[in-house]
Amino acid sequence: MTRQLHFNLFLHDTGHHEASWRLPESDPHANLSLAAHQHLAKVAEDAKFDSVFLADGPALFSEPGRRPSGKLEPTVLLAALAVTNSRIGLIATASTSYNDPYNLARRFASLDHLSGGRAGWNIVTTAGEAAARNFGLQDQPLHKSRYERADEFLEVATKLWDSWTDDAIIADKESGIHAVRDRVRAIGHQGTYFRVEGPLNVPRSPQAHPLLVQAGSSEDGKDFAARWAEAVFTAQPTLAESQAFYADLKRRVVAAGREPDQVVILPGIVPVIGDTEAEARELDAELERLIAPEHALAQLSTILRIDPERLKLDEPLPADLPDEDEIEGMKSRYTLIVNWGRRENLTVRQLIGKLGGGRGHRTFTGTPVQIADTIQQYFENGAADGFNIMPAVLPSGIEAFATKVVPILQERGLFRTEYTGSTLREHYGLPRPANQLELISQ
Amino acid sequence: MTRQLHFNLFLHDTGHHEASWRLPESDPHANLSLAAHQHLAKVAEDAKFDSVFLADGPALFSEPGRRPSGKLEPTVLLAALAVTNSRIGLIATASTSYNDPYNLARRFASLDHLSGGRAGWNIVTTAGEAAARNFGLQDQPLHKSRYERADEFLEVATKLWDSWTDDAIIADKESGIHAVRDRVRAIGHQGTYFRVEGPLNVPRSPQAHPLLVQAGSSEDGKDFAARWAEAVFTAQPTLAESQAFYADLKRRVVAAGREPDQVVILPGIVPVIGDTEAEARELDAELERLIAPEHALAQLSTILRIDPERLKLDEPLPADLPDEDEIEGMKSRYTLIVNWGRRENLTVRQLIGKLGGGRGHRTFTGTPVQIADTIQQYFENGAADGFNIMPAVLPSGIEAFATKVVPILQERGLFRTEYTGSTLREHYGLPRPANQLELISQ
Ligand SMILES: Cc1cc2nc3c(=O)[nH]c(=O)nc-3n(C[C@H](O)[C@H](O)[C@H](O)COP(=O)(O)O)c2cc1C
Ligand SMILES: Cc1cc2nc3c(=O)[nH]c(=O)nc-3n(C[C@H](O)[C@H](O)[C@H](O)COP(=O)(O)O)c2cc1C
Repeated sequence: MTRQLHFNLFLHDTGHHEASWRLPESDPHANLSLAAHQHLAKVAEDAKFDSVFLADGPALFSEPGRRPSGKLEPTVLLAALAVTNSRIGLIATASTSYNDPYNLARRFASLDHLSGGRAGWNIVTTAGEAAARNFGLQDQPLHKSRYERADEFLEVATKLWDSWTDDAIIADKESGIHAVRDRVRAIGHQGTYFRVEGPLNVPRSPQAHPLLVQAGSSEDGKDFAARWAEAVFTAQPTLAESQAFYADLKRRVVAAGREPDQVVILPGIVPVIGDTEAEARELDAELERLIAPEHALAQLSTILRIDPERLKLDEPLPADLPDEDEIEGMKSRYTLIVNWGRRENLTVRQLIGKLGGGRGHRTFTGTPVQIADTIQQYFENGAADGFNIMPAVLPSGIEAFATKVVPILQERGLFRTEYTGSTLREHYGLPRPANQLELISQ
Repeated sequence: MTRQLHFNLFLHDTGHHEASWRLPESDPHANLSLAAHQHLAKVAEDAKFDSVFLADGPALFSEPGRRPSGKLEPTVLLAALAVTNSRIGLIATASTSYNDPYNLARRFASLDHLSGGRAGWNIVTTAGEAAARNFGLQDQPLHKSRYERADEFLEVATKLWDSWTDDAIIADKESGIHAVRDRVRAIGHQGTYFRVEGPLNVPRSPQAHPLLVQAGSSEDGKDFAARWAEAVFTAQPTLAESQAFYADLKRRVVAAGREPDQVVILPGIVPVIGDTEAEARELDAELERLIAPEHALAQLSTILRIDPERLKLDEPLPADLPDEDEIEGMKSRYTLIVNWGRRENLTVRQLIGKLGGGRGHRTFTGTPVQIADTIQQYFENGAADGFNIMPAVLPSGIEAFATKVVPILQERGLFRTEYTGSTLREHYGLPRPANQLELISQ
């Protein structure tokens, strides 16, 4: 069989375009609606997507006035979707900076059990003071120490997931022995950030542990991904940048002693689909008109960490922006935006228009065939193993992608027409992790 | 209408009797099975129960060998049950000692949104070193400081739940205003245990916040309940003790400036139902035979905090046990067990037999009419507002209770035949909480 594409649907209430909630078709309460999320997951599952995904952070990040800003907590919401969907994978974002490994490892193990092996964890370190100030801190921990903590967090979590062997439970009613004593073991972790005794209070789950997904693209982020991630989300605005990222990350994976195909790279794309090119462009333009520029300005100034007064809508970005080194927040997003503005010599207004749709992800505007062609081009030219699909408007954008773009790729033999596995890791063609503790003790 | 009973089903895989998993009818993997939990919740909902409830703690508490010991995390599991059940309330236990208020307040708000107002939180402080050692501590914090932290935790959580007014979201597509700015407010909490800026990133939920449930019966526990709880679980082995507890707690509620009927008191009962008395007693005896005494000994010695060697199966409890004051773990459970053993002059083996079924809760063994009579007696004599039903064996025990005992109580006009409200708080006849922050700012 030819190499197969993978698709993840990035769930985002009325769509990834920040003005999408204002369209006549949109339910502006979709962010809190179980039914709206169930529908999106169903459309993606009917189209045989590998997974759906929810972004997250423990703070109210955007100003609540201008768009739906409250979000249901992802592990809880995806547990509900596990019941209404039986095949598709369920990827929840959770922060290593603002969680305890015991609690979080446990929630993911629980989600994996109750979904029959469909849980995934998008591991983030959470930039920004807003989150820090909800957890007793004045400001975010340094970027470097966030990633150090993330490393140790993963060490603890994977040990906890391995604290029961797969054959620990024998459930022998006759002898009254439910689990074999020495197959459930403490982990006795003593580190810099954590001391965790274990064992976990959830037996090993169908996938052994959730699929590990990562989305940070700074140097530290990529090294972290190379060590831990099995799938990587990334925002890359051009084919060339996507290729460079792809090659760079696979190289790091090999340097970390792993096989390059054990990490699936999924750039984000914002498909804006029209039956004609003109129709697609009209949708694009309509969304751009709905963006409230003062809100977008505030957001951009937060990412760039400069005074909003310094951004003039009809002028280019200021010349004296800091280097990525000096940024403690979202390093790679920062660089992407600054480079984009400079490369295309955009005014702030133009830059905001481009970011409004995909926040730095690549927008593909066109007919279904044009979009399928671009996907195939990326896939066959070392830029992607699949895509993180981020429709500007939901549910219409995923309905259009599912019914118009997916069939073209299926016809070309590039995407499954039926699920062949039952777990999320099987969808992505990845092996079930071995048990580290079991190997050591043998 | 006459005063109505309330029923909660305490979910516990194959039943509350520790040997229940060994019965031929039992699925020994029920603890990890979504389907098994769905079935239990469905039976309870068909019988018009107010709620189902999951106990919890962030550690592997019991030795895994002797009974199913792994547990799915409750908020995640109940989110899944929210989808398959549309009316019944969903009460999850979570610890104030081993969670951050921001994350936990958010998960409960999310569960309340996605269940349409059916979330409840059983607030516990979590006794024991096992949990402490999973969170970087050598031993549990002192009982007193656990309750101090719990108090401040509730202060923070309730402020977060009030950080959006009910009318904050206007979702006006025309003006592009989604939420009214000054209706979403930081809480700026600065306390001894927590500094939390807020606001929560989930808007106010259908119930305003989850029903607050509490289950500690020590002095500090009861004072905490008087301040915060809307429903209270308790283990009381006799009618007289139940009456004393009931009167004591209602008195404390009044002393805390609340109405006595704003707190619903639910003692636990273990119904062992037979169509004849002899049949009921035979089921009791069979379960007692299945208990592995060495395991029960180990468990008892942990609660009593003495060397297991000092417990002799055919002798009474040692005379020189410590006072409750010296116990930093589960104070009230400790006293209950010691008093029970002494009052009835039980051998350790007999005490274990009685505890095996209900861990200190009252066992009602008898025919459906006898059980209905006892329930009515408690209810009408100042001992209970309803019951926490803890069948020794599941699902058969709740099926028997639902089909044989509930109809008798319905005929007597003591229990609903249809749900009249849609939220958990409406089931318990409790008012929706006002918004503290809104009152202050007016
Ligand atoms: C598709 C995608 C989704 C992301 N989702 C989240 C998220 O949910 N929460 C979060 O804090 N960061 C999220 N990020 C951001 C990254 O995880 C990371 O925090 C950010 O890129 C900064 O990390 P870096 O400094 O390593 O680049 C996402 C990034 C991408 C590309
Ligand atoms: C019905 C019932 C359920 C309980 N569930 C839990 C639980 O899930 N987790 C827990 O840590 N304690 C649980 N407890 C114990 C109490 O919350 C409390 O921790 C214990 O009684 C010790 O508190 P105290 O010292 O105030 O009595 C439960 C108690 C009762 C009566």
